[in-house]
Amino acid sequence: MNTDRALAPGARIGIVGGGQLGRMLALAAARLGLSCHIFTPGADEPAIEVAARATLAAYDDQQALARFADSVDVVTYEFENIPAATAEFLQKLKPVRPSPRVLALTQDRLVEKDFVAKLGIEVAPYAQVDDPGALARAVARIGRPSILKTRRFGYDGKGQALLKEGSDLAVAFRSLGGTPSILEGFVPFSAEVSVVAARGSDGEFLAWDVGENLHDNHILDTTTVPANISDDLRHRAHDMARRIAEALDYVGVLAVEMFVVDGPDGQKLLVNEIAPRVHNSGHWTLDGAVTSQFEQHIRAVCGFPLGSTRAHGPVVMRNLIGDDVENWRELLRQPGACLHLYGKSEARPGRKMGHVTFLKT
Amino acid sequence: MNTDRALAPGARIGIVGGGQLGRMLALAAARLGLSCHIFTPGADEPAIEVAARATLAAYDDQQALARFADSVDVVTYEFENIPAATAEFLQKLKPVRPSPRVLALTQDRLVEKDFVAKLGIEVAPYAQVDDPGALARAVARIGRPSILKTRRFGYDGKGQALLKEGSDLAVAFRSLGGTPSILEGFVPFSAEVSVVAARGSDGEFLAWDVGENLHDNHILDTTTVPANISDDLRHRAHDMARRIAEALDYVGVLAVEMFVVDGPDGQKLLVNEIAPRVHNSGHWTLDGAVTSQFEQHIRAVCGFPLGSTRAHGPVVMRNLIGDDVENWRELLRQPGACLHLYGKSEARPGRKMGHVTFLKT
Repeated sequence: MNTDRALAPGARIGIVGGGQLGRMLALAAARLGLSCHIFTPGADEPAIEVAARATLAAYDDQQALARFADSVDVVTYEFENIPAATAEFLQKLKPVRPSPRVLALTQDRLVEKDFVAKLGIEVAPYAQVDDPGALARAVARIGRPSILKTRRFGYDGKGQALLKEGSDLAVAFRSLGGTPSILEGFVPFSAEVSVVAARGSDGEFLAWDVGENLHDNHILDTTTVPANISDDLRHRAHDMARRIAEALDYVGVLAVEMFVVDGPDGQKLLVNEIAPRVHNSGHWTLDGAVTSQFEQHIRAVCGFPLGSTRAHGPVVMRNLIGDDVENWRELLRQPGACLHLYGKSEARPGRKMGHVTFLKT
Repeated sequence: MNTDRALAPGARIGIVGGGQLGRMLALAAARLGLSCHIFTPGADEPAIEVAARATLAAYDDQQALARFADSVDVVTYEFENIPAATAEFLQKLKPVRPSPRVLALTQDRLVEKDFVAKLGIEVAPYAQVDDPGALARAVARIGRPSILKTRRFGYDGKGQALLKEGSDLAVAFRSLGGTPSILEGFVPFSAEVSVVAARGSDGEFLAWDVGENLHDNHILDTTTVPANISDDLRHRAHDMARRIAEALDYVGVLAVEMFVVDGPDGQKLLVNEIAPRVHNSGHWTLDGAVTSQFEQHIRAVCGFPLGSTRAHGPVVMRNLIGDDVENWRELLRQPGACLHLYGKSEARPGRKMGHVTFLKT
């Protein structure tokens, strides 16, 4: 159902997924006088206790999904790995934003790369790998080092295998479960950046300043804004994100991760990945910009006007992974540090427990 | 019970009162990974749906109060007119911050003015009025125009009567219900300002920049920061707030409302009122400062270090009273406007429905 109901304060937003992104979306919705209903298979998820309502049920529980849809005015999601069938089922009952089509596209690395490449936007060399034979042919074409990735359900480095000279291709393919994959050429990038942006239901497009991302063990460690890139590159990064959002007829916040690559003709940008949701590299906007990515996403999916993306000044956002969170008291003491904790009780290694934004002016 | 338990993220905060201040406190607590339990006599209050838990019970329901206290690690309140007996009952079970002593003091205009005056801080001329005879004597001393106010339970202009030349004193006294009152001399002020500040459990004191307040029909209309006063006056305003907070052994956020009065020796400040809680004139800090008054109050009552009160730049906060809220879509469109709605369904005249902060840089 895509009929555009005019939403207003008091409206109810359904959020599929109950993690920290859902929590921060629900908190942003509350600022605007909106209430949220979380749908998640997991109990004890961070979003539940800040939302007016929660349904704990499996993604294929159609009775629960129907009741959930019935109770809300619009549905959105906080992560992209929900089953396409769930989104399509919900869309028959209530508007789902961004659309299930976007979800389906970004759930498959191959489909996503084909889509970006067809827009004339450069991506890393890639090849479809459905079996060990295809992997051998892909390696012959793309070379090594290269990275074998499952087409679906990878995140934070999960579902990836690095292929170096001498790596056993069959072992690598089996290590990912033998599922449909793609081989990506290794890109000798000088920096990783991301554009977090929003597109409204009326087509308005607004991006925050480009952030520069550092990863640690495949998990985002810090985002520094502004990224140390030229104005020209910044402009091109924004333009790429805009073209992607427009081609998807996107409504909501999205993030586009890019590699900065030095070349004979100066620096260029390759698109690495599209995230059809609020994104970790946009967390700094909670404290460092006039409008946060979370509020902006809520505004967009409700059909409200978008807010200013102006930054207050330079910032660094640092993720608190696992035990990092034990430094919370020390972080609270640092001038200009804005601490966010997600209310997770157990600090497992690799688990995102919170983040801190350092406002540098 | 005043034993200082070391709280940490995961702690549970009890908030007495369920209005918009409680709502914004609960949202700030959630950012820090804390959960809130709201105690309020009213159903359908703004704070309820953003808190992990709510108890709807009367302030004298000791069973409900005991269960509430049992479920939390620390108790605070979002408005000052809760019965002193309620605060004292809770204090026997869990730490209550700020202390019930502060609550008792600020609930009585006469006791509060005596307290401020004894600190050597100037207040408007005032006199105790317990009966019509005392009112006549007070008017003879203080003159007219002057304002008769009930000692207890007044807010937003309620419980006040303006005495002009020719006003019938007996009628005025009866109009306030014949309850113990005070007469306050009319102060020919050039501006109303307020200091919103926090004192930590370790005695650390931090204030935000002074705001200049305009009222409309006795209800705060706008707060402009910084106030248009000299650096010397700003320094004196902060110093008065600090002395008041220290004399109260205050823990949490408080607001001190002051009059700026022009005199032969330049401008001076008179303290008008102390609010022992987060305050409407500090709402701008949600969008305009590194740390909001709501997070700061939560930090203080949990015994956490206080955060930076640095402002991002000049701001104007405007309350949305009654029908004002119907302009929400227009407000969302204005660049630099940060809209907050409190989730109240009915926009009655005089009701605070939300506020908007305009970031001017």
